Amino acid sequence: MKRLEKLIDRIITQLNVNLRRFDFDAEPHLKKRLPLTQLLKFYAFYGITTQHPIHFQFSNSNLAGSYFLGQCRVANSVLYKSDIRGDELKGKGSTFQFQDKELAIEDDEIISIKGSYLIKTLVHSYSHDPEKLELFLIKNSATSSYCNVHGSPMEGCFLSPFATVDLTSLYNCIVGRFAYVQTGELSDKVVADGQIWIRKPNAFEFKFKHSEEVLNRYVTYIPGKSTQGIFIDFVEEREDEFQRLFEVVHRSTPVTVPTGATLNRYAVIRGETTINENVLVAQRAYLDNSWLGKGANAQEQCYIIHSFLKGYDVMAHGAKIIYTLLDNKVFVGFNSFLRGNLGCPLTVGYSTIILPHTIIDLEEPLAIPAQHLVWGYIRNHKDLEKNSISLEALSKTEGTLQLGEMTFAGSGEQFVKAFRSRIEHILNDNGAYFDGRKNRGHAQKGHNISFNIIQPYSMGPSKGLYPTIDISP
Amino acid sequence: MKRLEKLIDRIITQLNVNLRRFDFDAEPHLKKRLPLTQLLKFYAFYGITTQHPIHFQFSNSNLAGSYFLGQCRVANSVLYKSDIRGDELKGKGSTFQFQDKELAIEDDEIISIKGSYLIKTLVHSYSHDPEKLELFLIKNSATSSYCNVHGSPMEGCFLSPFATVDLTSLYNCIVGRFAYVQTGELSDKVVADGQIWIRKPNAFEFKFKHSEEVLNRYVTYIPGKSTQGIFIDFVEEREDEFQRLFEVVHRSTPVTVPTGATLNRYAVIRGETTINENVLVAQRAYLDNSWLGKGANAQEQCYIIHSFLKGYDVMAHGAKIIYTLLDNKVFVGFNSFLRGNLGCPLTVGYSTIILPHTIIDLEEPLAIPAQHLVWGYIRNHKDLEKNSISLEALSKTEGTLQLGEMTFAGSGEQFVKAFRSRIEHILNDNGAYFDGRKNRGHAQKGHNISFNIIQPYSMGPSKGLYPTIDISP
Repeated sequence: MKRLEKLIDRIITQLNVNLRRFDFDAEPHLKKRLPLTQLLKFYAFYGITTQHPIHFQFSNSNLAGSYFLGQCRVANSVLYKSDIRGDELKGKGSTFQFQDKELAIEDDEIISIKGSYLIKTLVHSYSHDPEKLELFLIKNSATSSYCNVHGSPMEGCFLSPFATVDLTSLYNCIVGRFAYVQTGELSDKVVADGQIWIRKPNAFEFKFKHSEEVLNRYVTYIPGKSTQGIFIDFVEEREDEFQRLFEVVHRSTPVTVPTGATLNRYAVIRGETTINENVLVAQRAYLDNSWLGKGANAQEQCYIIHSFLKGYDVMAHGAKIIYTLLDNKVFVGFNSFLRGNLGCPLTVGYSTIILPHTIIDLEEPLAIPAQHLVWGYIRNHKDLEKNSISLEALSKTEGTLQLGEMTFAGSGEQFVKAFRSRIEHILNDNGAYFDGRKNRGHAQKGHNISFNIIQPYSMGPSKGLYPTIDISP
Repeated sequence: MKRLEKLIDRIITQLNVNLRRFDFDAEPHLKKRLPLTQLLKFYAFYGITTQHPIHFQFSNSNLAGSYFLGQCRVANSVLYKSDIRGDELKGKGSTFQFQDKELAIEDDEIISIKGSYLIKTLVHSYSHDPEKLELFLIKNSATSSYCNVHGSPMEGCFLSPFATVDLTSLYNCIVGRFAYVQTGELSDKVVADGQIWIRKPNAFEFKFKHSEEVLNRYVTYIPGKSTQGIFIDFVEEREDEFQRLFEVVHRSTPVTVPTGATLNRYAVIRGETTINENVLVAQRAYLDNSWLGKGANAQEQCYIIHSFLKGYDVMAHGAKIIYTLLDNKVFVGFNSFLRGNLGCPLTVGYSTIILPHTIIDLEEPLAIPAQHLVWGYIRNHKDLEKNSISLEALSKTEGTLQLGEMTFAGSGEQFVKAFRSRIEHILNDNGAYFDGRKNRGHAQKGHNISFNIIQPYSMGPSKGLYPTIDISP
């Protein structure tokens, strides 16, 4: 185990150097939290498909429980139960639009993770850094449980539990627990706990911050100790069911899956659950007694329990809904937590956007109207008033707007347009609009993944490290 | 599937060219026998240990159900449910004794399989070709179900079902069903069905041939059709139990295994089975209601059913014993089939050698005395008389000896000495003599193997082929 321990020490030291201006010490975050025995316990796996270029290169790393798809390179890193998806990387010969410029992609893009320590983190989509088109680089960084690194290359960063970085290049930043940033780029910044921050330079800026009291209830985090709170209790209660999926090599499908839909073999399905056409259920999604209408998707770490998705709904990575009815084209953002109960359901109207990191935890039945933007923390009708706005009203906003704890500045029209276009892009990529021939997406391409299982050395100085692996077409 | 089909055609054509002097046509042997769908069904797996150098290189091949350990390279080949063990290869810096010469090994030896088609075949030990010390090469060759390729490099060869080639370099040969050769080298030869042939130039030669009638009962083989007979019925009846082992990623040990013993997780254990100290149970061994005494071993494709092994017994690859009691240090050779029954048990005395490919299928209780050499086909006391000789009597033989259908020529003393030294070598390699500190062998080293599972493309032109894989320390 000597080499693995040295590797972790090396990551800690490098990250402390990168974040020295903040007097940051990575050691309690990284070292005391995860017993090394855990890193031996779970196998890693990679998927082979003919749908996109594959190249897996792993060296001097521990990959326990991690999942890889597409082109990924991992060196001198620890990736524990992380999902590294390279199935939306930019392809050679395509182009990348940056502002008014069109940039040519000269090589197939690759996700490269170097000297980093990621725990239960999703790395997905493609790099949105216009300066490094063919490389989605995560270097000298560490992330915590249930973080999302979405199209966001980073160097020298630390992400606290449940943080999401989205379409943003980060350099030497610390992102607080349950914070969400989508700001294009960010360097030498500390993003506060619970901060929701969406900014497009010269266009708009949205800001909201969860209160300390709410954060402490849902995500408590003391470095060196484990994360606690309602979110963690919720996922831990359901962890055993995932374990059973990992114990078998092949799995028989528990429900009927229409031709154009995909149910990943590492997703949990319980109760009376229905999967309709063009539905995508990703690995580590959890469905219980729910109805997924045509073109809906359930992405990684989603929980859909006693809920109804009418169709074309997007459940972004880490979103959770319980006793919730979604009309068509509802968007539920990253790590959002929507909890109704049997006597107190939540309904969400047509085309409404629930922003990432929204908490709706009901104490009375609630119906969110169609075509609204929703954020923050909502328990009842009164909270909803201060934490939502109709998309129509927002589109008319120009300048600044304050509503409850939320501030908005800039063009509401551009904000709404950007979100709507992104939702369409997600539905399209996931295959929601497949007509039997055209508009093929992940829901159609995900059928024929062959899973390969890799394990580390189980003894000697290399104990816990995986051998050097190179897989190419 | 286009590329896989082309690959098989290419192997057939090349083998036909190599064996053209025999008017051999590989097509019915290779093509009609195995539906291509089978090649998609089973995953392959390789073991990672720190006990010996690893390097796995797979390219343009199908590896369905195959097992790899140590240094192996496979290119342009189909390996179906084969065991390729590279854990006894020659190591860099060691020496190889050839007659009176000592040759230095300058590189770690590697098993290299090129342009070949192996089915349910064991490739094991190290190459005994003194001309290619660092390469155990199998090229342009095809083998059939339950063949053993033991320390025998070969080029342009075809092995029929249940054939064993042992410590022999082969070039452009056809080996008949259930034939066994251990002749040092062999080229441009056809070895007849059921031929048992052990030869050491200038030392001794042993020959026996099973009758056509016996062969037809135990192994019928018509090219283009499946193999039939008692052997196949026997293994097929037990195949489902192996399938269950392959369906789970990790397996809990069904019996207590002492510290110095190894039970491979891909071995079947049933009934009241006891595993004592320093026992080695290899992958795809089958134990049912049996007692394995200290230092006994059960190698790949062994079946031990209602049997008692007192200790230090060797069950070579493919050996099967039913209602059989072995005293200490009994050797049961490759693919031997020893079948007693509840009212009609077989007992084998101390230090007796059952030659490879011996069939003992009892119609009355039988006790084989200690320190004998046994071969051929035995159903009762009368058969035993013509198919065995005491090692003492054999040691005194100089010149020729005929007994029943067996002929022996040369030095009996050297023959007995060679066999005894080999048995000691096997016991030692397998860790039978481990004393808690010294004499560590496979039984002690086999504990910490991490298994990695690989699968082929499941669609497209590469369907059935595995991606290019390179695994190094």
